[in-house]
Order: sequence, then structure tokens, then C-alpha cells
Amino acid sequence: MEPDFSPLAEFLGDEFDGYLISADGSDSNQLYLSGFDAPDPYVTLYTPAGIHLLVSTLEFGRAKKESRADTVSRLSDYDYRDKHAEHGAVVGKAKTVAAFLADHDVGSLAVPADFPLGTADALRDEGVAVEAETDDVLTNIRAVKTDEEVEHVHAAQDANEAAMRAAEGLIRDADVADDGTLTYEGEPLTSERVKEEIEVTLLRHGCALDETIVACGADAADPHDRGSGPLRADEAVIIDIFPRDKETKYNGDMTRTFVKGEPSPEIREWFDLTEEAFEAALDAVEPGATGADVHDAVCDVYEAAGESTLRADPSAETGFIHSTGHGVGLDVHELPSLSPSGEELRPGHVITIEPGLYDPDIGGVRIEDLVVVTEDGYENLTDYPVELVVE
Amino acid sequence: MEPDFSPLAEFLGDEFDGYLISADGSDSNQLYLSGFDAPDPYVTLYTPAGIHLLVSTLEFGRAKKESRADTVSRLSDYDYRDKHAEHGAVVGKAKTVAAFLADHDVGSLAVPADFPLGTADALRDEGVAVEAETDDVLTNIRAVKTDEEVEHVHAAQDANEAAMRAAEGLIRDADVADDGTLTYEGEPLTSERVKEEIEVTLLRHGCALDETIVACGADAADPHDRGSGPLRADEAVIIDIFPRDKETKYNGDMTRTFVKGEPSPEIREWFDLTEEAFEAALDAVEPGATGADVHDAVCDVYEAAGESTLRADPSAETGFIHSTGHGVGLDVHELPSLSPSGEELRPGHVITIEPGLYDPDIGGVRIEDLVVVTEDGYENLTDYPVELVVE
Repeated sequence: MEPDFSPLAEFLGDEFDGYLISADGSDSNQLYLSGFDAPDPYVTLYTPAGIHLLVSTLEFGRAKKESRADTVSRLSDYDYRDKHAEHGAVVGKAKTVAAFLADHDVGSLAVPADFPLGTADALRDEGVAVEAETDDVLTNIRAVKTDEEVEHVHAAQDANEAAMRAAEGLIRDADVADDGTLTYEGEPLTSERVKEEIEVTLLRHGCALDETIVACGADAADPHDRGSGPLRADEAVIIDIFPRDKETKYNGDMTRTFVKGEPSPEIREWFDLTEEAFEAALDAVEPGATGADVHDAVCDVYEAAGESTLRADPSAETGFIHSTGHGVGLDVHELPSLSPSGEELRPGHVITIEPGLYDPDIGGVRIEDLVVVTEDGYENLTDYPVELVVE
Repeated sequence: MEPDFSPLAEFLGDEFDGYLISADGSDSNQLYLSGFDAPDPYVTLYTPAGIHLLVSTLEFGRAKKESRADTVSRLSDYDYRDKHAEHGAVVGKAKTVAAFLADHDVGSLAVPADFPLGTADALRDEGVAVEAETDDVLTNIRAVKTDEEVEHVHAAQDANEAAMRAAEGLIRDADVADDGTLTYEGEPLTSERVKEEIEVTLLRHGCALDETIVACGADAADPHDRGSGPLRADEAVIIDIFPRDKETKYNGDMTRTFVKGEPSPEIREWFDLTEEAFEAALDAVEPGATGADVHDAVCDVYEAAGESTLRADPSAETGFIHSTGHGVGLDVHELPSLSPSGEELRPGHVITIEPGLYDPDIGGVRIEDLVVVTEDGYENLTDYPVELVVE
């Protein structure tokens, strides 16, 4: 099942002949539009008539086999080597791309806002009209997942659950030293040790990640703190894991909060309140509702209980101080957003729901699942218990 | 010890007031110039008077503490939120950056060739002159490492050696099944299994990687093949590992070729010849020699033995069909290049030396070490035996 690129054709309209991406496969727009991954930059042209790739000879065979392109051309088809030798890398490449565009009758281009300036200016010198688009047209298409994409996210989330189980297991099996820190097999149980366990588990499930959050106590009160040092009993530990499947490149995302021992009354109250906000947000997820509606549902619960939110106080530094969620796909943060500016939810949107409360004097609490919007509500892609106390 | 940015000042000369990067910390030029890493895009301005950062409020404290900037400004210092609300993300950001540039008396900019077009055009609309530079001025500065950077590469290479030992150990301890495939603890020993061992070992040493090569037999005859499926006795297995230290972000790089059992006479001859070419290349490494000289030393050895090279036959598909090496630092492939166009070597250049021979009918052989150019030659950063047969 192919993505629906018709909004891109509508966007081009009469103004542009085509949409061009020049990037390597680590760029999610490139990966998505081309259906192809390569470590060096390559060129993808979308026109209402089809998708056309321009790649190195080295990648030609694989691009023909693996990409979703209707046609694949080689740099050597346009004498790239000679142009490079005569004009240097940037101008030589632009002259090559200009010849490729002429072959496809393209004289005017829309490109992503992060398109490389050197190539754009050199294409303009070749007489091609180039304009950066700021409508997020491609990222809005990417936000609506096909069934196959939902399966890829689901598989990454399955691996995520295995990693969370491994992390929770370390905390469960830990001992408490006299000073209140956790130990495991005689060694201090640190954020770093738990992250290593998470990463090794993910590797064995075909996933990788750049960062993980395992943050205890005051660390957990800063939503951007990755956490470090020994974990302690009776304090809340936030574990937020966002792995990427190495094969499909789709991401998962989940957060749980654990306490080994006895949580403070405040943490216990916050956890129950956050679970209530989490359920209220899920209840609000359906096609036609907006990301802003879902965010409001969370703020309503927190504010009714007297907690501070950014909605009530834009300068708040404690309480609910981030948005409710975001899309997940080839990027771990993508459209739609579940925030005050959140747009309308559509079937196929894959989103996180992740309310939380933060205060350096108390700690932090966050609960996060990953769900897909369906025709009549949502389906939860996460299968992991929501329980605070680990014993 | 700070990098020497004076070539950047010379490049700017009278033509440009400053050099600007707008990217997140995954961009190595950004990471290097700012001395700062953040997951969302931020702005670094170099002028002959100093380095100036423009970051979000969230990153302000950390940027002041960790970056090499002389001054750090916040987006909110230039009313970014209002500008964003009024003009949208791209134009709002450009108006904010324009105000920041005016504060530093900068009206004309050189930027990297991959600078985002949307931002560049919007800055031009604000009256700032913006030109993409194609002289690799910053990447040439990055190519010359400080002692501290060499230590970071060395540490990544130490982790690499541990991973190579783990991989070699699996092959050594493997059994040979009746059909000639290797088995380990009763399971087939595959490329995938060896890669997992490598990745887990690297993780435990604080490193990560996106890809590894463990390629056996005909797979190994394609230098870009990552390898897959069961490993076989009596065939050459190329293992090429290029990890990145997660803390420092510097890379290592090493390749070894192993045979479990009895290599064919051709593989044995190729290995000895490749070791000879490898030694000849190392002998050629010194300040003042060019990357082309080192590459020629390898070609001389191979051609004298009657092997095909790209130097002798640009259309060769077997024999020595790649360049001799490349710089390694924040990127695993960076300047200088050890190829026909290779530039002059300078003390502080960190380079790979990696000759190899390939033929689908025979297999592949490659030997790769990582060395730093010194005042009077080179120092090898790699400490791993060069031996073909594993038993």
C-alpha cells in the first residue's frame, strides 16, 4: 500500500513543475518520498506524473530494485564526472541535476525548507526556479500512516516493551543500601547501568537509539534531563525509551514511572492524577478532534486538581510544563502535535499521549503510550502495565 | 587546547562579516564550531572577534557552561515567540536571526553549502547578504586534530579493538558443520550474530554505530556489502568496524580479514600482498607527502604483482577498486582523502590506511589501521594483530 501523494500534486498546482529532495537516507522526507535508503546524498524528483531518482552508479541496481521510483537515472547518464572535474562539486552537481530536470520537463521547483543552499543557488544559476516551501506539505502526508507503517511502529513498540521489562526487572531485583541507593549484584544501580540494559535489549530486538531517559528524583523534574548516577529507593524514576527499528527505520516511544520502595504521598497522588489525565486524553482521541482538544483534556484534569499548567500560566516552571504528545514515524518527533496549536486528528495518525508533572522538590511523574487514530477512536499500540510501585 | 580558527578569519577577509551555521548537534560542523551539542537546531556565528550562540531558553544555561562561545543569546532576547506567531516558523526565525546578526554588526554571511535554503532566502529578504561557500574551509580546519581530539579518536579505537576481539573470538570458537558453514553453541554463526556481538561490546564500551561490515566469501568482494547469512570455513571474512564514542562523538575505524580453516592459495597470496601494500602506504605517510602519494604507494605494490587497480584501469571491477583511506574525526569520513586527488598531509591529520583486493570468484581481503600524522611521520592509533588464519 503506497502513501497518498495527491496533496503534493495539489500543492504544486500550476506554480511548480516538481518537488525535489537532495539528501541522504537519514533525512526522513527523502527516505519516505523515494522509498530508498543510501548513506550518500541522492536526488528524488516528484512530479504529478511520477517519482524519479538520480543516484550514483554504485546505488543504481539497488535503487531500481528497492525504491518506489518510476524511473531511476545515474549521475553518469548526465556526464557528472566531467561536470564535477570542470566546475567543482557543488556547481558540477547542480549542472547534472539541471540536465536531469530538463529531461523531465521541469523548470520550476518547490523544495523542503532545509534544502541545501549551495545546490539551490547553483540550480538558479542554471535557470531553474527554486522556492523553499514552508507549508510542511510532505510532513503532513507522512503524518498519516498506511497499515504497513503502523505495523512497523507497532514492532518497534514491541521491542520497547521488552526493553522496559528489562529495566523494570533491574529495579525490582535491586537491593537497597543503608544510604537509600539501589544496588544490583553488589554494584550501585545507576541510570547508566539501566540505560545499558535497555540498549542491549533493544539491539537484540533489532532496534537502536541515540538517547534514553532514566532519571531519578530531582533529575526527573526536568523533562529534558537524561538522568545520571545512582538510583534511590522511595523516589520516582522516569524511564522514557524511544527506539528505532534498524531495518524499517520506524520508531517506538513509551514512558513509565517506577518507585522501588515507598513513594511519598505527593508522588502517589501525582501518579494517580497523571493516570486520570492520561485516560482523559485517550478518551478525547478520535477523528475530527484536534490535538489541542486532547491537550485541553489533560490540562482540565490537572487544573481541576489545583496543579499548575502552561495553559493557565505560560511562565510556569513546575506542574504540567510540556505538550501532551506528538506524532511518531520515521522521526520520533513529527506531526501532528498535541499542543495548544494541535491540528485535526485523522485516521492513521500515530501519536503519543504523555501527560506528566514536575517539581524539583517532589520529583517527576510521566505516563506515555503510543496509539493510532482509527475511524472511530484509537487503537493502543502499547501493551505494558501502568503501575507505580515495583516490588 | 582550542582549534585554530584563523583560516576561517582569512577566508572571510573583507568580503564577509561572519560565518553562520544553523543546524542541530548531529551536524559535525555545528558541533565543532560551537563546542556544543543539542538535539534541536541552534545558531552559531563566527566573526574574527569571537563565537556567538543563539539558542532556546531551554538550552541557555547548558550552552553558557559547555559551549566554546564567547557570548550566548536566547531566542527570547529577540522576541522570537512574537515573531513566530506573526510570521510563521521560517520567516519568524529568520527575523530573529537577523536581529541577532545586527547586534553583532554582521550584514554579510558565508555559510556552509548545506545551509537550509528556507532560512537563507528569508535572511536575504531581511537584507542580509548570504553566500554558500564551496571551499570546505571549516572541514579543512576540522581535518587537523588537537591532541585532545586525537585522544578521543584513540579511545574510540580502543573500544573498536575490544569489539574486534569479541568478533574474532566467535569465529575462533566456532565449529564447522558438514556443509562447511560455521556454528556457535549449536546455532549457525551468521554475519548478523557477529554484528550483534560487535554492537553489544561497543555499547559496553560507551560507543555506538549505525552499520558494521561482516562479509564472507562473495559478499566480501563488494566493498559496500554489509554481509548477511551464515559464515563459512575456508573463506575470507572481512570485518570492518567504525564505532562512534557516544560521549565525545569521535569515531574509530578498523578492518581485519579472517579465515577459519584453510585459506585458498589466492586468498593467502592476496593477504600477504595487501599487508605489503599496507606497509608501503604507512611508510609513505609523513607531513608534506600528499594523500595521492600514499595512494600511489599502494597502487605500485598491487600493479607490480599484476593486480588490477582503478589507477591502471578506471573501469576495473575487480582488484583494488577504492581509495586508500580518508580522514576520521567527528565524521567517520572526512578530510583529507588518500586518493588520486588527495591533498598534502599535515601533522594532526587522522587517517585510515586500508588497501584491499576484491573479486567475486575469490572473495575479498582488506587490512585497515587508523593513524595520526606527526611532525616526522605517523603514530599508529591501532593495536591489533594482522593475522589471516583464526585457529
